[in-house]
Amino acid sequence: MYLIKTIKKRDPAIRSWPETLLYPGLWAMVFHRPAHFLYKHGLFFLARLISQISRFFTGIEIHPGARIGRGVFIDHGMGVVIGETAVVGNDVLMYHGVTLGATSGEKIQRHPIVGDNVILGAGAIILGAVRIGAGAKIGAGALVLKDVPENGIVMSASGILR
Amino acid sequence: MYLIKTIKKRDPAIRSWPETLLYPGLWAMVFHRPAHFLYKHGLFFLARLISQISRFFTGIEIHPGARIGRGVFIDHGMGVVIGETAVVGNDVLMYHGVTLGATSGEKIQRHPIVGDNVILGAGAIILGAVRIGAGAKIGAGALVLKDVPENGIVMSASGILR
Amino acid sequence: MYLIKTIKKRDPAIRSWPETLLYPGLWAMVFHRPAHFLYKHGLFFLARLISQISRFFTGIEIHPGARIGRGVFIDHGMGVVIGETAVVGNDVLMYHGVTLGATSGEKIQRHPIVGDNVILGAGAIILGAVRIGAGAKIGAGALVLKDVPENGIVMSASGILR
Repeated sequence: MYLIKTIKKRDPAIRSWPETLLYPGLWAMVFHRPAHFLYKHGLFFLARLISQISRFFTGIEIHPGARIGRGVFIDHGMGVVIGETAVVGNDVLMYHGVTLGATSGEKIQRHPIVGDNVILGAGAIILGAVRIGAGAKIGAGALVLKDVPENGIVMSASGILR
Repeated sequence: MYLIKTIKKRDPAIRSWPETLLYPGLWAMVFHRPAHFLYKHGLFFLARLISQISRFFTGIEIHPGARIGRGVFIDHGMGVVIGETAVVGNDVLMYHGVTLGATSGEKIQRHPIVGDNVILGAGAIILGAVRIGAGAKIGAGALVLKDVPENGIVMSASGILR
Repeated sequence: MYLIKTIKKRDPAIRSWPETLLYPGLWAMVFHRPAHFLYKHGLFFLARLISQISRFFTGIEIHPGARIGRGVFIDHGMGVVIGETAVVGNDVLMYHGVTLGATSGEKIQRHPIVGDNVILGAGAIILGAVRIGAGAKIGAGALVLKDVPENGIVMSASGILR
C-alpha cells in the first residue's frame, strides 16, 4: 500500500513496516475511504457514523465529505479536524492538532483547498475557502486566513523570552 | 431537546437531526449534568469518574464543578478542557481545543466566566478568572488573559508569509 | 508512589488521593515505563504497541524512546505528543496539547531536552533539539524553537482586542 511506504519513508522514528499498522493516521484513511463513498451516494448518516467511529479510535476527525488525495500522512493525529468541503492534495504531510475549518457564511466551498506535497505543522489552523499552494509549508501553530502561494512558507511568531 | 435543535441550526455540515446523536459535544453535556449534580452533593470521586468516562468517549474534559448553561454547543470538541470553577453562559458555541483554564494562585474563582452567546474559536486558550462579555467572539488560536467586553472581538495574529 | 503525591500537591481541583487514579497523566507514566524498557532492549514493535494503547486510553502519545524523569505530571493531557529522543527532567509539570517535537533533519538528538522543574503551559509547542533550562516556564500556546535559559519565562503573544 502506497501510504504504508509513505509513512515508513517520512517518519525517522519508525523501525519496521509493521509499525505503520499502529499509526492512527493510517487507520483514519482506512475509515475515510468507505465513509466518503457512502457520503457521495447520499448515505449521510452511515457516513458520519463511520467518521465518528474513526475519530474515537484515532483522535482524527475527517468529515466524510472531505476529498483526500493519495499518500496523505497524518502523523500523531490527535485533534486533527478536517471539514466537509476541504480538499487535501496528494502526498500532504500533516501533524496532530491541524484544523482545516470554516469561517461563518453560507458559501458552497467553506473549507481550505490544500495543494500537493504541502506540509502542515502541528496545531496549524487554516480557516475558510483559502488555497494553500502546492509545496507550501505551514509552520507549527500558524493561523492561516488567506491564500498561500506555491512553495510559500508561513511561520507563527515564536514565544517571547522575558 | 434544546441542544439538539441548537446543533442542527448551528452546524452547516448536518443533514438530519439523528446525526446530532453522533456529536461528542452532545454526549459531553449528557455526561456533565449528572457529574455536576453529584459534585454539588459532595460525591466528588463519583463525579470525577463520570467526567473521565466522558473524556474517554468524547475527547472533551469538563470538570464536574464547572457551571454550564443551556444550549452550549461544543463542536468537534477533541482536546477541550473546562476547569472546576469555570462558568459558561447560555448558547455559547465553542470549537475543539478550547481551554478554560487557571493560572497559579489560591483564589476561589480560578477559571473564566464566559457570558451568553459567546463564540470561542478552535484552540482558543482563556486562563484565569477573567470575564468574557456576552456576545464576544474569541478567534481561533487566541490566548486571552484579560477581561473581554460585551460583543468584543479578539483575534490571534496570523502566521507570517516568508 | 511519588507521582500520586505530586499530583495531589499540584492540582488544586483534587479532593482525595484516589482521584489521582482517574488522571490520564498517571496512566501515561504507568504505560511508558514498560514501553521504554522494551525499547531499550530492542523490542521496538511491542514498545510502540504499548505506547499506542496508552495513547488510546489517555490521549497522551509518548514515544517509547523518550526519557522521562520522576514526578513528571501531565495534567489533562489530551493531545500531548513527546518524540523519540526527547528528554524530560524530574518534576516537570506539563498541560494538555504540549508537543515536544522534531524539525526536519537527520540528527541523532531530534527532540527537546527539558530540565528539572520546568512548567510547560497548555498547547506549548517546542521543536528541535533545544534545551529548556531547569525551572523555566513556557506559557500556554508558546512556540519555542531556541534554547531557553534556566528559570527563563517564555510567553506567547495574547490575542488582540478589536
